[in-house]
Amino acid sequence: MFVINALAQQLSTQFINQVQDIIDLKTKPQGSLGMIEDVARKVSYIQHTLSPKLNQPCVVIFAADHGIADEGVSLFPKAVTEQMVLNFLSGGAAINCFAGQHQLDLQIVNAGVSCDFNITNDNFINNPVAKGTNNFLKMDAMNEIQCQQALKQGADIVNQKFSKGCNVIGFGEMGIANTTSAAAIMAALLGLSGEVCAGKGTGVDAQGVKHKAQVIDQSIEFHQLKNAPVLKILQKVGGFEIVMMVGAMLKAAELSMLVLVDGFICSVAALAASKINENFLDYTQFCHQSNEQAHQLLLKSLDVHPLLNLGLRLGEGSGVAIAYPLIVSAVTFFNEMASFADAGVSESE
Amino acid sequence: MFVINALAQQLSTQFINQVQDIIDLKTKPQGSLGMIEDVARKVSYIQHTLSPKLNQPCVVIFAADHGIADEGVSLFPKAVTEQMVLNFLSGGAAINCFAGQHQLDLQIVNAGVSCDFNITNDNFINNPVAKGTNNFLKMDAMNEIQCQQALKQGADIVNQKFSKGCNVIGFGEMGIANTTSAAAIMAALLGLSGEVCAGKGTGVDAQGVKHKAQVIDQSIEFHQLKNAPVLKILQKVGGFEIVMMVGAMLKAAELSMLVLVDGFICSVAALAASKINENFLDYTQFCHQSNEQAHQLLLKSLDVHPLLNLGLRLGEGSGVAIAYPLIVSAVTFFNEMASFADAGVSESE
Repeated sequence: MFVINALAQQLSTQFINQVQDIIDLKTKPQGSLGMIEDVARKVSYIQHTLSPKLNQPCVVIFAADHGIADEGVSLFPKAVTEQMVLNFLSGGAAINCFAGQHQLDLQIVNAGVSCDFNITNDNFINNPVAKGTNNFLKMDAMNEIQCQQALKQGADIVNQKFSKGCNVIGFGEMGIANTTSAAAIMAALLGLSGEVCAGKGTGVDAQGVKHKAQVIDQSIEFHQLKNAPVLKILQKVGGFEIVMMVGAMLKAAELSMLVLVDGFICSVAALAASKINENFLDYTQFCHQSNEQAHQLLLKSLDVHPLLNLGLRLGEGSGVAIAYPLIVSAVTFFNEMASFADAGVSESE
Repeated sequence: MFVINALAQQLSTQFINQVQDIIDLKTKPQGSLGMIEDVARKVSYIQHTLSPKLNQPCVVIFAADHGIADEGVSLFPKAVTEQMVLNFLSGGAAINCFAGQHQLDLQIVNAGVSCDFNITNDNFINNPVAKGTNNFLKMDAMNEIQCQQALKQGADIVNQKFSKGCNVIGFGEMGIANTTSAAAIMAALLGLSGEVCAGKGTGVDAQGVKHKAQVIDQSIEFHQLKNAPVLKILQKVGGFEIVMMVGAMLKAAELSMLVLVDGFICSVAALAASKINENFLDYTQFCHQSNEQAHQLLLKSLDVHPLLNLGLRLGEGSGVAIAYPLIVSAVTFFNEMASFADAGVSESE
């Protein structure tokens, strides 16, 4: 479905050495910029250039409602999904502050919120698959056609951004109860229990986490998702915003864009994308490790190293936006910093 | 010497509650911005206002040479200190890239480099205490008058920045062999062995680290620094850039400026400052945990939580500059984000 080339196969040894030489000949001890050097390498590889650039950086937030909210898995009422979409559009949310700080283009997508939006706003794509998913404890979250539609719509949105010159794109989400959907997907994909994958979400207590875990275990049993194919898992227990993110991420990788991954839910979408195409992760930068207990485990299972560990657990792309200046730092030092020869500085002995 | 008030004593319960209310009534789950919330609280407390502002942010790099370099503790020749000062002044170093990225005012201070600089540059303060310290394995690094002079000069520089409106100041350093001096100060202040405090610095091998550890142990023994007063330790095994940083940090705290602490050497200066005045740490934000092995231990002993953990080990204030946008994010969300009431979003149930 998505054609994503493994980065390593596309890059010559000569090119890889050139990138490393540029980094190592900067006026600093070798390796002393740590992960900032890793990011510089990654961006150069993805863009296949010795002069990487970050063009039209963008954060896309996918919002949707979840039938599983009826099981009382979230601290907030379902109406908050709609309210937060309006908050994004009027500029009052955390992501607005951080996107504004770093001049990130912000796009809000109604992937499947349970209401009608009568709004015209350049930053709003109002094209829901349906008004929320079904309660996946009792039936399929969505049907196969809806799942395919969500994947395609996510991909189409990225295509549009790419056609306007964007080469770095971050994803975020909003959807009351979507940590439960994400945890169920993670549990099914990795063969783990609900207990391991359920977390506090927006702040439920220990009792609430236990309840989420039971809901997850029962849902996986009900839909027979053990060792099931990715698309079946997404269809049975996913959410429209999560599935759109999967499609969007895969398309972005196909187009050799740098994909910035936010917190737990976004990382679960990335996990699903990596199960659909094993080369996907080559194009990703995980931005932060959240406070959601399963996130650390998920990042470890993917063998990826996020830039930040600030105890964030907000979603909506906030971790992407907060981490974005670190990506800029990586590209800036790679392009601008003097070499030992340029600066007349002695190298190590 | 420095009058630094404990923050907790200055703030009323009412004010503390007001700050927390502002944070908790933003449209997000409580606590979901993690350490970004901690920073917002800290800045509000230090500035004692509900409308914190970051004015004229500045990074000051203190550079000096070290007699202990003669013991072969660094991978780089001593001449690199001078060369890097020139690199800072011509804009080619890592800190130039990152300071430029975030519009940080950059000030370079010759605290005691082993050469003459015939340079006029608005960003350069050329007022060395001496041309490098003595080899502290064999004699005192500096005399008492020099130590006092370095403290005072550091404080004076901060005073100047403050008088021009700066209220947030980061510190960095450059000095071949200064990880050895810093590790010796740490070992003496915390009663630890050279083995625990010595690290790779700019990249010495295991043999080199062992050698540094021995040099440190012998120096502490030679100067009888076990349980010695801070100022004696700084004088016997310190460096001019380190002592100036101590004076600068203490003055900045006295002036209720936010003090941004860089990596290992800068953190050792902060440790010394905290031993001189126990209220000092109230005014600090540690910016990153470096790859230098003792840094983690030091941060833990101070019970402080740095913003970044990116495997940096460069110094020169680079970690401060890379972390700076996170400080801005904290102040931005505190001032700009909508409350539940503003945005018409339902609170948790």
